[in-house]
Amino acid sequence: MSSGRSLAPIGVFDSGVGGLTVLRALREALPAEHFIYLGDTARLPYGTKSAESVVRYSLQCAEALMLRGIRGLVVACNTASAAALGALRERHPTLPIIGVIEPGAAAAVAASQAQHIAVIGTEGTIAGGAYQQAIHRLNPQARVEARACSLFVAMAEEGWVDGPLVEAVAHRYLDSLFGAENGGAARLDRAYPDTLVLGCTHFPVLCAAIRAALPVHVGIVDSAYSVAAAVAREFAGSGQAGPGGVRWLATDGAARFARVSSTFLGATVHADDIEIIDL
Amino acid sequence: MSSGRSLAPIGVFDSGVGGLTVLRALREALPAEHFIYLGDTARLPYGTKSAESVVRYSLQCAEALMLRGIRGLVVACNTASAAALGALRERHPTLPIIGVIEPGAAAAVAASQAQHIAVIGTEGTIAGGAYQQAIHRLNPQARVEARACSLFVAMAEEGWVDGPLVEAVAHRYLDSLFGAENGGAARLDRAYPDTLVLGCTHFPVLCAAIRAALPVHVGIVDSAYSVAAAVAREFAGSGQAGPGGVRWLATDGAARFARVSSTFLGATVHADDIEIIDL
Repeated sequence: MSSGRSLAPIGVFDSGVGGLTVLRALREALPAEHFIYLGDTARLPYGTKSAESVVRYSLQCAEALMLRGIRGLVVACNTASAAALGALRERHPTLPIIGVIEPGAAAAVAASQAQHIAVIGTEGTIAGGAYQQAIHRLNPQARVEARACSLFVAMAEEGWVDGPLVEAVAHRYLDSLFGAENGGAARLDRAYPDTLVLGCTHFPVLCAAIRAALPVHVGIVDSAYSVAAAVAREFAGSGQAGPGGVRWLATDGAARFARVSSTFLGATVHADDIEIIDL
Repeated sequence: MSSGRSLAPIGVFDSGVGGLTVLRALREALPAEHFIYLGDTARLPYGTKSAESVVRYSLQCAEALMLRGIRGLVVACNTASAAALGALRERHPTLPIIGVIEPGAAAAVAASQAQHIAVIGTEGTIAGGAYQQAIHRLNPQARVEARACSLFVAMAEEGWVDGPLVEAVAHRYLDSLFGAENGGAARLDRAYPDTLVLGCTHFPVLCAAIRAALPVHVGIVDSAYSVAAAVAREFAGSGQAGPGGVRWLATDGAARFARVSSTFLGATVHADDIEIIDL
């Protein structure tokens, strides 16, 4: 039993393809690891669904991955992490389960000099307040501004990831957060945040355009890398012998999943390699 | 039994709020009529789902409306009309069922001088080819160009319905369809369509911005009004005594439904008036 090859893989699920940015960071951090990725594409997006629905869907995703044998679970979806992490840990008390909110919040608190942090995400994530709460657990004095940026998801899925149009949308969402309304220069003072958390797994692919719309002194926290670091710590010492790989599951639309995946994963998934399952 | 009041209402369903543009046109055409509107908000959007899933969801929506008593059904969703109209008519052979594709296609064929028509919609509607086929059934010689405009849905739901940013997105989607790439003037010749069908129920709220991005000679067909006219013809003579009204059903998120509804309906639906049902 000395070979790492016998270890069960790490399960990763998301409502669709956004979680592939997290998987990409996981693969970079743990290149010898085996993963099973489940995209619940039949019911995407989770971001506009009620918390009750998201909890139910998340428990079903975890169940499907448990049935296939996993030794850890990454909830690679901000909406599901916000709504369902507690329910998942209660249902599977011995399984290490890592969401994207807590590592992202910790990275933001570590990065912000003024402890004034902006968070952007889907409607569901922002309205649920999970990032705000996670940041306040780490520093009750931190100031947090939050804004839903729904159009970023659609642009990322369309493959519109840079250029003037994407930057214009970024300005529309972000200027007032950073004191740069009406085309004015962004204000560098404590009235505005110095750190921006990308609180949706779709957003890292728009990072360059978001960067271009931000004041230069504002730092960006990409949860995907914070999550990968947390997963690497959790599974340190249980490393696989490599080379690693990914088994692909989705609940609908293998062709679309394959087509859109390259934007998020930085590599192409072939439709034939995706197993469609019913939840 | 002479009072129209005793007639069952007309059922209308959509994946969410887009169908409210159809309901708005129906209410204008049949002000004395009673409607039940069902928004399947727990599973929106249908546009990115597989045809099999959309058929299953549509049959469930129709079933829920039948249980509440309806004398006709309007499928106020292009994706569901494209994928599920046949299955719905097979399951409910005596119920008058009207989708949005056929009336829209008929209006386009009636409007296009050169019989050269452009159709825009969601990925699912365009990939399924239902508008293209419906137009060709009416005129096999017609030329049809089709393009998915996914971002329009997100913009409409965000309430971003006009202004330079929306027009820039419209240009990005439409310029090459109408020979106006690279900022050049749109070409008025038979190589390009003279009629544009808004093949998604979300798009009418963006009509002014879409208009601004189009060559002036191009006509716009809004399926919502074509559908309302078809429904008025179908139910001529069975008119209610009025005043009409709407009973609201949704599968998730009454608060969001209420908030977004005003953009699409032109009137506010109160969250307390929306009954949440399970399908």
